[in-house]
Amino acid sequence: MIGEIIAIGDELISGRTENTTSVFAARHLFAAGHDIYAMHTIGDNPPLIGEVLKRALKRVDFILVTGGLGSTTDDLTTEAVAEALDRAPVLYPEILERIRKHLGGNQQANNLEKMAWLPEGAEILNKKAKMAGYLLVHDSVPVFFLPGVPYQMRELLLEHVLPKLAGWSGNHHRVKQRTYKTFGLPETVINQRLLELEKRESIHIGYYPVGCEVHVSLTVLEENRQAAEEKFIAADHAITQALGDFLYGTDQDTMASVVGDLLRSRHKMLSVAESCTGGMIGKRITEVAGSSSWFAGGAIAYSNQLKEILLDVDHQLLNNYGAVSEQVARAMAARLANKVKSDISVSVTGIAGPDGGSEEKPVGTVYIGLYHDNQVSVRLYHFSGNREQIRNSTTCTALDTIRRAMMTH
Amino acid sequence: MIGEIIAIGDELISGRTENTTSVFAARHLFAAGHDIYAMHTIGDNPPLIGEVLKRALKRVDFILVTGGLGSTTDDLTTEAVAEALDRAPVLYPEILERIRKHLGGNQQANNLEKMAWLPEGAEILNKKAKMAGYLLVHDSVPVFFLPGVPYQMRELLLEHVLPKLAGWSGNHHRVKQRTYKTFGLPETVINQRLLELEKRESIHIGYYPVGCEVHVSLTVLEENRQAAEEKFIAADHAITQALGDFLYGTDQDTMASVVGDLLRSRHKMLSVAESCTGGMIGKRITEVAGSSSWFAGGAIAYSNQLKEILLDVDHQLLNNYGAVSEQVARAMAARLANKVKSDISVSVTGIAGPDGGSEEKPVGTVYIGLYHDNQVSVRLYHFSGNREQIRNSTTCTALDTIRRAMMTH
Repeated sequence: MIGEIIAIGDELISGRTENTTSVFAARHLFAAGHDIYAMHTIGDNPPLIGEVLKRALKRVDFILVTGGLGSTTDDLTTEAVAEALDRAPVLYPEILERIRKHLGGNQQANNLEKMAWLPEGAEILNKKAKMAGYLLVHDSVPVFFLPGVPYQMRELLLEHVLPKLAGWSGNHHRVKQRTYKTFGLPETVINQRLLELEKRESIHIGYYPVGCEVHVSLTVLEENRQAAEEKFIAADHAITQALGDFLYGTDQDTMASVVGDLLRSRHKMLSVAESCTGGMIGKRITEVAGSSSWFAGGAIAYSNQLKEILLDVDHQLLNNYGAVSEQVARAMAARLANKVKSDISVSVTGIAGPDGGSEEKPVGTVYIGLYHDNQVSVRLYHFSGNREQIRNSTTCTALDTIRRAMMTH
Repeated sequence: MIGEIIAIGDELISGRTENTTSVFAARHLFAAGHDIYAMHTIGDNPPLIGEVLKRALKRVDFILVTGGLGSTTDDLTTEAVAEALDRAPVLYPEILERIRKHLGGNQQANNLEKMAWLPEGAEILNKKAKMAGYLLVHDSVPVFFLPGVPYQMRELLLEHVLPKLAGWSGNHHRVKQRTYKTFGLPETVINQRLLELEKRESIHIGYYPVGCEVHVSLTVLEENRQAAEEKFIAADHAITQALGDFLYGTDQDTMASVVGDLLRSRHKMLSVAESCTGGMIGKRITEVAGSSSWFAGGAIAYSNQLKEILLDVDHQLLNNYGAVSEQVARAMAARLANKVKSDISVSVTGIAGPDGGSEEKPVGTVYIGLYHDNQVSVRLYHFSGNREQIRNSTTCTALDTIRRAMMTH
């Protein structure tokens, strides 16, 4: 199906806030086999919202509208839609009840009750969500209204809009999809490796850099169910071969969840000793629900003093080689593992910048240590980019170091 | 002046490439006193390029078009414009000469010569640039055509488009802007407090939830310079009063950078003892460049064992009260501060879910401890949402706890 995306919000047209939701939606719609005809970003301007919406209704098969659904005075999407499409706002008691329940008789309710009024004919997408979102079918065109808050919008898009759209097209097409998640190969190299596959009929390949990873999407569009299955299996095999051990997982996997699965199945406990990342590795790991069964914790040894006090790194070692050195990375990993009795310990120490670099150890110099099976190995990296990028690369590489160590055991 | 921005490129509508140029342009045009009416992103699709352009010509005072000016077969902007506005392409010898000189007789020139053909009446913006860009005045509306390559587009925008527009409009508007960053007040309450201010002439207020914070933007649009200054000062005062100590900073400030400024000016060192946040507080803090001057580090005491080993929390205490308890939060903060000799220490222990909750201590139960001036205080919170939201709320609240402690000292 062909669609348009309309993002609404004064903060978007002033350039104050980057419109990440439209890009996210475009990627996922495209990967699901839809084409995007146009994306519009407009302010909280009811006449223009109406105008853009009405023109899109004539041009495309579906429309996605994000933003302007909240409770504040500058949230005007529903009013604009009611006016433009001649659908008077109707009170939805189930939303009202949820809001009242949530507030427990608080006076602010008056304000929030605005969110319980939707254009006539609106179908609520997720009755349990804080911001429900709704679907309005106008002139046979499905128009999805989603909140502008990125995480709310993403959840509704993935769990409600995409399935509904898949049903809409009357299943003319059989769609099979998978996302392949890689770390360590540049996007251009992956692209080269999959060029031949791209040419196959019914196969769509997408490439998406996400942080320090590259994700590859495979979509097979086929009318015939069996043909779809066969083409999917063949393409899946080709991709898996092409990506090798740079492929760490698929779909809902994260690098941390994959590391966790590997550790749990091997009954190993992990600990971390972080300097320049300051807690990022621990944060990433503990995003995984249930990580306490394979992650003990560790130290944020940001200052030299804490490297000594919490990790028992020798004062002499720090003095002789400096905190950013192979020797200190080695000591951090080994001493922590020894102290907390973990099976595996990863350490990072480096210069994230913008200051602190020298000719010998420029900004981006990072040592990553790994204690495992009573042995410690340390690797030196030179990451590029700003402070955030260097810290991010360090975190991804540290997690991948654990993954690769577990895969060979 | 009021304008529209049109970004052209198939890579943009598939979501493969993020459209950073439109945001960049919007920011700079807005800061220069212009209003953006709408931003469109469309593919390399000549009929649609023509349609969107013609509609914009009727609506606004100026138009910025980016992308599709290159030499490859999918660069179709100039053809589309020639067709839509009935301006046959004309050969611009100065561009052709520059291209030929640049290539030195290379055969690719045939391909690149396409770039020397511009719509009739086009005025070249920068004859020396690799991608010149051009201005077309149609029906008295200036339409700027810029390359889609970000750095080329930015240079032409700043050095050619903005000065030309300033001459065009005669600086009708003076703009003053500020963003106010708050934590702890719901968006609806802030909205209520600023309702009166919203009604003042020339004042624009926007509300933006960002993670667990709410940001408020103030924009003053005025023809007269002095009036703009006066209204801005009055509005700034009103907002500052209305937000009270929920306002933690403005513009480029982050909660962590403000905490850092407070600690540095008081010559205090901070340490953190994180359980359920697993490193998030440390991550947030160390995002601030130079944080090593006020942040020592701390412990990710995720398991009970690590609370004992790294933080010297009594085994008995953990046994008697459980890891998520006032007693353990108290011990974590006090023992860490004592161990690493920091002036201030913050501790968090809680149940982030989805598992681990009980009737007595449901998911969302979090204790935050603060050691400061030889005293420890602990507060109990009940955060709502999923694992990510609970951890995020915990992190924000922990940082705000430090901020508030420093403000009263």
